[in-house]
Amino acid sequence: MKYHESTIVVRYAETDQMGIVYHANYLVWMEIGRTDFLESIGLRYFDMEQEGYISPVLDVHISYKQAMKYGQKAVVKTWIKSYDGFRIVYGYEIRQEGGSEIHISGETEHIAVRKADFKPVSTRRAFPAWHEAYLEAMKS
Amino acid sequence: MKYHESTIVVRYAETDQMGIVYHANYLVWMEIGRTDFLESIGLRYFDMEQEGYISPVLDVHISYKQAMKYGQKAVVKTWIKSYDGFRIVYGYEIRQEGGSEIHISGETEHIAVRKADFKPVSTRRAFPAWHEAYLEAMKS
Amino acid sequence: MKYHESTIVVRYAETDQMGIVYHANYLVWMEIGRTDFLESIGLRYFDMEQEGYISPVLDVHISYKQAMKYGQKAVVKTWIKSYDGFRIVYGYEIRQEGGSEIHISGETEHIAVRKADFKPVSTRRAFPAWHEAYLEAMKS
Amino acid sequence: MKYHESTIVVRYAETDQMGIVYHANYLVWMEIGRTDFLESIGLRYFDMEQEGYISPVLDVHISYKQAMKYGQKAVVKTWIKSYDGFRIVYGYEIRQEGGSEIHISGETEHIAVRKADFKPVSTRRAFPAWHEAYLEAMKS
Repeated sequence: MKYHESTIVVRYAETDQMGIVYHANYLVWMEIGRTDFLESIGLRYFDMEQEGYISPVLDVHISYKQAMKYGQKAVVKTWIKSYDGFRIVYGYEIRQEGGSEIHISGETEHIAVRKADFKPVSTRRAFPAWHEAYLEAMKS
Repeated sequence: MKYHESTIVVRYAETDQMGIVYHANYLVWMEIGRTDFLESIGLRYFDMEQEGYISPVLDVHISYKQAMKYGQKAVVKTWIKSYDGFRIVYGYEIRQEGGSEIHISGETEHIAVRKADFKPVSTRRAFPAWHEAYLEAMKS
Repeated sequence: MKYHESTIVVRYAETDQMGIVYHANYLVWMEIGRTDFLESIGLRYFDMEQEGYISPVLDVHISYKQAMKYGQKAVVKTWIKSYDGFRIVYGYEIRQEGGSEIHISGETEHIAVRKADFKPVSTRRAFPAWHEAYLEAMKS
Repeated sequence: MKYHESTIVVRYAETDQMGIVYHANYLVWMEIGRTDFLESIGLRYFDMEQEGYISPVLDVHISYKQAMKYGQKAVVKTWIKSYDGFRIVYGYEIRQEGGSEIHISGETEHIAVRKADFKPVSTRRAFPAWHEAYLEAMKS
């Protein structure tokens, strides 16, 4: 299964007064991981939006084992967990750069919708090249 | 079961270029819901931190049915889903003010830890008044 | 001169590891103050966007005397500092609720532009009702 | 005069419903530019905090000529505009990668304070190595 790793330097703005990265910010990192993953298989989310489609989040699950801190670099590993031609679920694992321990893990589920009316579309039919790339990334 | 409803005016800063509230921001709203819920049962998260404890998030699940938009007011309903003296799970439902449809639902799981070393503590033993208030809120 | 005061409860998400409100977040509060001020004089920014115009920020100045903290409520006082039919400058002062000391002060300058191409428009001509309300707010 | 350029990929989370980067987020980018600039002259802000000092923002000025958008990469150029042994002012210019036009420019003023009580300290006396590096960066 294909995956991609994005390196993210913790921003001061991402911390909270617990002295750790504020828990909602990992969703932003997962989005970066997802975008980078897509680019690594030849797809650009920006292009999908240019064509009048967006890919909103339907469902999010995050499990926090250990927080990341300012001064650290995070590595976000991203891959496709499942895809049925319509819904796609991405998996994520966040580690400290150079470390093996998983700090944060999660998954997000998406569909493609028309930007104009948020009407769902079949990725298989509306974006056949994306469809093929997803399937390819799941087996390779 | 006791619950609390917080009203939140959508901030422009919370939108993204999809024209909806960016998906990570609902976690911020859930935190507001949780804080307000606690105050409604006589507890103040601020006080817990003053005593040297924090309550980080262990687990998050969010389900997005319909996005909120700028110009709307959201109502976040918050309650305790489960509590075992140690772990507490809050439930959330987000509606548009005056509406009955659930736009976003979710839950977050927390424990209390010492701020100095993130060492978990038993809420029952370290915060007996909180323990009692939690139990009371679950049956009333 | 007309002004409006908005009360804002500090969000946990707005803090950073200095234990204070992260400095960029006061700009979000100023936007809330501005929106509320406009509503207090009968104008709704939401409506301007519905008509295909937006009001981007041209210039920002913020002076930080004392930071706000979690557990506090902020009061944002907003008024029109200057307006020439085209450019409008808002003034802001942020205090702690019940306090007299100014913690943060600032100003932001805006024009109205067409959303489609960011082409500037004269508020006096494109939004005569807004123009009148601005002038009225500056003298009353 | 020494300067440093940081490249920043626009995050989806940084956009708002105008379809541009939300104006407060450039302050976050300036912080990244500042941190990178310091590292380029051998200083690490993280270390200052470890020693019990922080460097809060006293004053911010931002001028917005043209917004950045999703799909773009920004280059933040950072340098020291002035420094008197106590107060330091950083200058910033934000361009699109590969472009010559300045989209956003700004400056931020800082002092060093003790984290425990926010009491100002003289950088010259408390951080002589930083003092020397600042002076060196201004002439080189």
